[in-house]
Amino acid sequence: MSTPFSRAEYAQRLSQVKTRMDKAGFDLIICQDPANMGWLTGYDGWSFYVPQCVLVHQEEETPIWFGRAQDAKSAHFTTYLPARNIVPFSEKLIQHPVGHPYDELAELIRARGWGKARIGVEMDAHYYTARCHAHLTKGLPEARFSNNGDLVNWARLVKSEAELTFMREAGRICTHAMNSAIAKMKPGVPQYQVIAEIYHAQTMGVGGIGGDYAAICPLMPVGEGTSTPHLTWTDEPLPNSGLVMLEIAGVRRRYHAPLTRTMHLGKAPKEIGDVAKAVVEGVDAGLAKARPGNTAAEVEAAWQAVLRKHGLKKESRVGYPVGLAYPPDWGERTASLRPGDETVLDAGMCFHIQSGVWLADFGVAISESFVVTDKGGERLTDVARELIVID
Amino acid sequence: MSTPFSRAEYAQRLSQVKTRMDKAGFDLIICQDPANMGWLTGYDGWSFYVPQCVLVHQEEETPIWFGRAQDAKSAHFTTYLPARNIVPFSEKLIQHPVGHPYDELAELIRARGWGKARIGVEMDAHYYTARCHAHLTKGLPEARFSNNGDLVNWARLVKSEAELTFMREAGRICTHAMNSAIAKMKPGVPQYQVIAEIYHAQTMGVGGIGGDYAAICPLMPVGEGTSTPHLTWTDEPLPNSGLVMLEIAGVRRRYHAPLTRTMHLGKAPKEIGDVAKAVVEGVDAGLAKARPGNTAAEVEAAWQAVLRKHGLKKESRVGYPVGLAYPPDWGERTASLRPGDETVLDAGMCFHIQSGVWLADFGVAISESFVVTDKGGERLTDVARELIVID
Repeated sequence: MSTPFSRAEYAQRLSQVKTRMDKAGFDLIICQDPANMGWLTGYDGWSFYVPQCVLVHQEEETPIWFGRAQDAKSAHFTTYLPARNIVPFSEKLIQHPVGHPYDELAELIRARGWGKARIGVEMDAHYYTARCHAHLTKGLPEARFSNNGDLVNWARLVKSEAELTFMREAGRICTHAMNSAIAKMKPGVPQYQVIAEIYHAQTMGVGGIGGDYAAICPLMPVGEGTSTPHLTWTDEPLPNSGLVMLEIAGVRRRYHAPLTRTMHLGKAPKEIGDVAKAVVEGVDAGLAKARPGNTAAEVEAAWQAVLRKHGLKKESRVGYPVGLAYPPDWGERTASLRPGDETVLDAGMCFHIQSGVWLADFGVAISESFVVTDKGGERLTDVARELIVID
Repeated sequence: MSTPFSRAEYAQRLSQVKTRMDKAGFDLIICQDPANMGWLTGYDGWSFYVPQCVLVHQEEETPIWFGRAQDAKSAHFTTYLPARNIVPFSEKLIQHPVGHPYDELAELIRARGWGKARIGVEMDAHYYTARCHAHLTKGLPEARFSNNGDLVNWARLVKSEAELTFMREAGRICTHAMNSAIAKMKPGVPQYQVIAEIYHAQTMGVGGIGGDYAAICPLMPVGEGTSTPHLTWTDEPLPNSGLVMLEIAGVRRRYHAPLTRTMHLGKAPKEIGDVAKAVVEGVDAGLAKARPGNTAAEVEAAWQAVLRKHGLKKESRVGYPVGLAYPPDWGERTASLRPGDETVLDAGMCFHIQSGVWLADFGVAISESFVVTDKGGERLTDVARELIVID
């Protein structure tokens, strides 16, 4: 096995992270977000349901992988790290009521002479639990802990050319999966059969380029369910008439290109068609703004202005960065396309503009994943941009 | 939409949880584990990537759902809760650098008059982050916080008849998916094509009973990769000769029946066949012990005795309870089949005996999901129990 990127690219990432650490005043950061672990080292495996992390210390030449003994071998297979920086914890600490793997992490940090370090942790990373933090801080009473503010997530914001290759492949896989789903949808077809088609297409990929598992399962609210975004499928047949919303991603080497489309079974009421047109017009306004030098807030404002013109509005943010991701979320948890976000866009950033409008009784979403370029947002997928009517 | 269980069953669950709370000295518990949220209320949606929870207070007739405004409607659709106990937090708090949704959770708890309560939180639930805990405790300075020790997870250990129906359906789906994978495996077939087949079969289910998404993606280490358990697939073709290990689950209404099988492409060396026989013999010894009144440790000891007889041993635990689950794990994080675990088995408990042996250069796992019954462990799946040789 080998890492998905060159050794030079990992070195460049590490150097960028150390510069950010220096600026923020950290000797050591502890990364439990699986995407940060993978981005820093290549580590890849479905082991994030147990405590594990990657450490970056200013004076250490490579990161350190810390995880379950069973999984240390995966680290040898999938990372570029030297053996001394792959450190397993004892199996007996798995789901132990008293002991915790981070007791041994604290020991490791002390053993390396970093017991008094200024340590930045990912306070809000999904798997960095309250108990992880409690055991770690107890085990390192002389260290100075603070939130590193998603430091590595922010370092991931601009994608390299090699990453953009995966993003574009992910986009092609997503196009294929969405079109396969649309082809399968007919009144009377059980919902799960549409989803089976999607999973198959997501994984088969296109032209010999296989797909990977997505950080979020296919989301497919139906009928009144389209008024809320995160419902999943049932055994029920698709109705003869009504809305279906589908949000999925194409995934290549863990890089995600998400997409949402809204379908209407049978003739669509004019009101719904009008909302769909406003949404697409709004997305286009947002894409036109997605150029280096503009802010995340300006992209949102461009979209919101179009919506306002059509008498609509969206309360929640309209988008977020995408790239390398693991369950439960394909968003990178840094910038948001929303009022007040002054993040300045740069070429190579990738976003999902989740241009959905959720109203009292129904919702319409027609989104795009895009790369920021000098010419505005370059779309990663190519699926009909309209309310898709299935007769 | 409707809840998957009767109102009476939810009432019984709540009553059991309140009894446990009383015994443990809690006025209020806060459950962020999505499986606990679903088990208590019916709530179902892929929204667990943002802070959300279910509260149970001794004096409140039903639980309270607290989550993102966008998802509150999903709570109205999927739970039995009255509208006053579905409480949304403000969209602006999503991934906010300063504010946090749990600031509003603290407000809610104070507003209900519970600011001085004895509160049990799930310190090690995957999504209960260090930051969730920090904001919550800061917002409730007069409350007394402690770890509730997975109180609701423990309440879930014995399954009801209605739950066992889903577990058995999940088992049938798993059988179908595993057999589909085996049929697809041939030397030269790209790994992702086998996985596409699995996803399709997992979701299509059997006889009109559709499958749901699994808490863990299909795990398929190949060749030397079988020496570590959590690797996923690549684009590489299956080799002409060598081992493949596959761990998947069938899932019905979020209830999981996991299963592992080991395949050998081409003629298998005798050493590997011998390990496989020892593993199956060990599982049978464990299943025979899985009767009410015996302990989790006794099941492990029965398995380990067989292994020892064949000159093998396993360091890590040999199994865990399964049932309702969401990503990233289908284990229930309570009892473990391992030395020292004195949990007394009862009829209706369900376990996955993960009877894998991971050696220096390869691994062999032939597992079973089972229900504890008077006659020993009742297997939930029906797939050939041997090293499966694919010529």
